[in-house]
Amino acid sequence: MLVAIGPSSFAQADETPLEMLRAAGCEIRPNPFGRRLTEDEIIEQLKDVDGLVAGLEPLNAKVIGAAAPKLKAIARVGIGVANVDFDAAAAHDVKVSNTPEGPTRAVAEMTLAAALHFARKLVPMNAAIHAGDWKKVISPGLDGANVLFVGYGRIGRRTAGLFRAFGAKILVHDPFLESADLVECETRVDLDEGLRQADVISLHASGEDPVLADDQFAVMKEGAILLNSARGELIVEQALIRALDAQKLGGVWIDAFWQEPYSGPLAGKVGVLMTPHASTYTSRCRLDMESQAVDNLLRDLGLGAS
Amino acid sequence: MLVAIGPSSFAQADETPLEMLRAAGCEIRPNPFGRRLTEDEIIEQLKDVDGLVAGLEPLNAKVIGAAAPKLKAIARVGIGVANVDFDAAAAHDVKVSNTPEGPTRAVAEMTLAAALHFARKLVPMNAAIHAGDWKKVISPGLDGANVLFVGYGRIGRRTAGLFRAFGAKILVHDPFLESADLVECETRVDLDEGLRQADVISLHASGEDPVLADDQFAVMKEGAILLNSARGELIVEQALIRALDAQKLGGVWIDAFWQEPYSGPLAGKVGVLMTPHASTYTSRCRLDMESQAVDNLLRDLGLGAS
Repeated sequence: MLVAIGPSSFAQADETPLEMLRAAGCEIRPNPFGRRLTEDEIIEQLKDVDGLVAGLEPLNAKVIGAAAPKLKAIARVGIGVANVDFDAAAAHDVKVSNTPEGPTRAVAEMTLAAALHFARKLVPMNAAIHAGDWKKVISPGLDGANVLFVGYGRIGRRTAGLFRAFGAKILVHDPFLESADLVECETRVDLDEGLRQADVISLHASGEDPVLADDQFAVMKEGAILLNSARGELIVEQALIRALDAQKLGGVWIDAFWQEPYSGPLAGKVGVLMTPHASTYTSRCRLDMESQAVDNLLRDLGLGAS
Repeated sequence: MLVAIGPSSFAQADETPLEMLRAAGCEIRPNPFGRRLTEDEIIEQLKDVDGLVAGLEPLNAKVIGAAAPKLKAIARVGIGVANVDFDAAAAHDVKVSNTPEGPTRAVAEMTLAAALHFARKLVPMNAAIHAGDWKKVISPGLDGANVLFVGYGRIGRRTAGLFRAFGAKILVHDPFLESADLVECETRVDLDEGLRQADVISLHASGEDPVLADDQFAVMKEGAILLNSARGELIVEQALIRALDAQKLGGVWIDAFWQEPYSGPLAGKVGVLMTPHASTYTSRCRLDMESQAVDNLLRDLGLGAS
């Protein structure tokens, strides 16, 4: 069987997932561009293909229609499947899978890395010493900080567990959550109350609706740290820019953007830490998610254990 | 009574410790220089003083002799008291105290901040996006990493607990430790074995003897991350520079230097993150340690509860 690879980074850190495909007798068509494929390119890439290891390439009705009836399975490396037209997949009998457990630990780790970057100010102190200036700066730290979670699913909970290890207090805003679902050291809050109290705000919500606009930035604490590993659309970009220009925030980390690759106005702003949707880009997480996606694909192609 | 203040940062983030002194009826002589006092300056600063809230100023026999018999108590804000001549203090009946519990959580937090800085490469990815380059980089992460602790006292254990929360495995080298003192997920190793296995090496040893010289750098893994929050002398500076020049290491964080303020050859090196002995410089940790030091001083001056 012929398997096409979507993500340009697939098996880059560890060849094991490719070896799994070869061991199952699959022929492999790698991504020839080293970047995310366009609609025309993925149509070409899927010609005569039985299964796709998918990234975020557009798998819309046109693409799936062109690949049918040969294409039997799409295995997404990662959680999000907003790039897949499920109706078209169902109509053409293409099975779709994802790797819901894969990103949790790596995204939580990256979120703490970003929080500590701002909470402990290592980089400005380092720059000062390299410039010959020995100046101790008192930073806020995470011990005793109020950390607000907007959205409290799998990744939010894991991230909260790490913040708790550092001594932070956890506030949770999630309309889909019952208070009874929370443990003792977690406090349920409405959004405004949470924003007023929070030293750190970490976004983990699903959905397309903006959560933070001008009104929400207005009630935040002076010096609050804002972390977004979830979805660009959760923040109104112009409202964020106004808050940054007003020097309201103690730091902003963005890993999920409004468009990707991102080259918008935040690139010129001070106090913004940006990473290219790379929270899951650790060698271990990539290997876990890629191996899981290959397992899913082989199962859906009838080549592996179910 | 007259109390002199040594540390230039004392009560900078929160005035509570000064209020505690005033409430006990003390007159306060602040540090007039805004930096660490020299021998001549601390002699001047201690004239007619009953008690000193001490930082790292030189409290040698000459200084203590000049301040006696008026000086009754020295209360160090922090753990280390290598700057105090205990024989001279005893000879002049000057009580000396420190705050052993104070720094633990803040130093452990800072060590994780430095480890994550290197393990997740946020800063180079951020620089790339600001320069218009969207490039996902696969980083090692801490999940599943081997973290070697050289020295396993109060701070080492707290730091290991945080690393464990991220999924790291803990290796311990501490000649003063029995294997029976370790819990299940900690493994006792000799130094060479630990250095060979470690993805991250965190120094928490006491003492003046170097732990890492050329022979030790030679056995480290390619790409190992080295963290020193403990003491500059634990690393042979020239050996570290040779390892950096050979691009052997994945990152080095230094918070404790051979001389402080530091302005040596590391300032010109890439891959070195340096902070000015600032691991305890969070608002919460400073307040905890300063309040504890004031409690100790008031007790030793006969002004507080014992």
